[in-house]
Amino acid sequence: MSGARLRLYELVLANGRSASPYVWRIRYALAHKGIEFESVPLGFTEIPAAFGGRSRTVPVIEEGGVMLGESWDIAEYLDRTRPDARLFSGDSELATTKLLDAWLHAEVLRRMFGLYVLDIYNAARPEDRAYFRESRERRLNGRTLEEFTADRVQRLPAMRTALAPLRAHLGQHPFLGGGAPNYADYMVLGALQWVASVSTLPLLEAKDALLRSYYERSLALFDGLGRDPRAQPLFE
Amino acid sequence: MSGARLRLYELVLANGRSASPYVWRIRYALAHKGIEFESVPLGFTEIPAAFGGRSRTVPVIEEGGVMLGESWDIAEYLDRTRPDARLFSGDSELATTKLLDAWLHAEVLRRMFGLYVLDIYNAARPEDRAYFRESRERRLNGRTLEEFTADRVQRLPAMRTALAPLRAHLGQHPFLGGGAPNYADYMVLGALQWVASVSTLPLLEAKDALLRSYYERSLALFDGLGRDPRAQPLFE
Repeated sequence: MSGARLRLYELVLANGRSASPYVWRIRYALAHKGIEFESVPLGFTEIPAAFGGRSRTVPVIEEGGVMLGESWDIAEYLDRTRPDARLFSGDSELATTKLLDAWLHAEVLRRMFGLYVLDIYNAARPEDRAYFRESRERRLNGRTLEEFTADRVQRLPAMRTALAPLRAHLGQHPFLGGGAPNYADYMVLGALQWVASVSTLPLLEAKDALLRSYYERSLALFDGLGRDPRAQPLFE
Repeated sequence: MSGARLRLYELVLANGRSASPYVWRIRYALAHKGIEFESVPLGFTEIPAAFGGRSRTVPVIEEGGVMLGESWDIAEYLDRTRPDARLFSGDSELATTKLLDAWLHAEVLRRMFGLYVLDIYNAARPEDRAYFRESRERRLNGRTLEEFTADRVQRLPAMRTALAPLRAHLGQHPFLGGGAPNYADYMVLGALQWVASVSTLPLLEAKDALLRSYYERSLALFDGLGRDPRAQPLFE
């Protein structure tokens, strides 16, 4: 595969930052495996047409004639094609991590969407905003992004409580993966990076020491992959 | 270790059934690894004094002079002493499964306790009931078990919604562990067996097809380990 560098299609905001929690997982997974890649940034409006109908979401990777969407399929592909520095030891760990993702989706990502959807709109490239608003408001059964997020401050406590299992775990281990980060970390860091890309409302309390130290420790991973002066603060 | 059969100290109800979600995990883990054991049933009042202060909870296992409490420590011990049919491929899978357990504790087990604590009281051996009531009502800041569970029917919908991630996963895989059960299954089955030991209020709706077929499939595991005519129905 020399010369045929892997390409990662990402979602890009007006400030140039990558904004999808699922793209961020793959960014971390590529770093975990030491795979260099070429980034192809796309705005919200460019994604539906970019892959000839084969994928309507990012991440998408392309390599040596293979084009693949869906972050789970990509993660499995990376382990299959590069057996070193595996993301998953086998089917059992893969399944357990997917189950954890189902919890994360239901309890965390959904709530983050509810808190930050208007922030995402405002952070999108100007030419993407009308499309973003129209497509998301359809999901919200016609409520505007402004109506949907009007009471978001009242929803912060439930969001913070939903993260209690992470704190319980991080009280015992430096990373969600134990002594070293694993894909569970990349899923959670992906969500945090997503929020940090757009947030105008700090997700976490200043006194949330376990999550704060975890976040700081994680920003240092992979030569500071997650560090970015454009990132918004996650803590009050 | 011939002749020195492993002993599993369990919590027993009036009807002879084992009633702790954490004991049930270890029952499944022992079956997964094909380890025969001798059951030592203890009532609630017998546990605090049974281990000379070394453990105040079950499960506890004893084998060749080793006595060990805490289900996670026991699971790790079983993998260390019997490397076949591993429960966890290594530290990464172990950590991810523990993180999943933190979610399960926060979102599921806590709610089950709130729904079924009075049922547990009624199912306990008569001589254990006063102790059970006194110790649990202290945790409830002095509310009686009856007061605490009076509105439990209103709390069923939130309990059922909390299981949505399991349904999402089981729509894709026959077991939480993927094609075959793993410790994530044993954690969830342990919780379901706990409820089935005592329940007077069906946990799940009749139409909950994914969880129903999962439960039936799981009862058949290990020669019907989970099947028991004394078990209460989990479905309406």
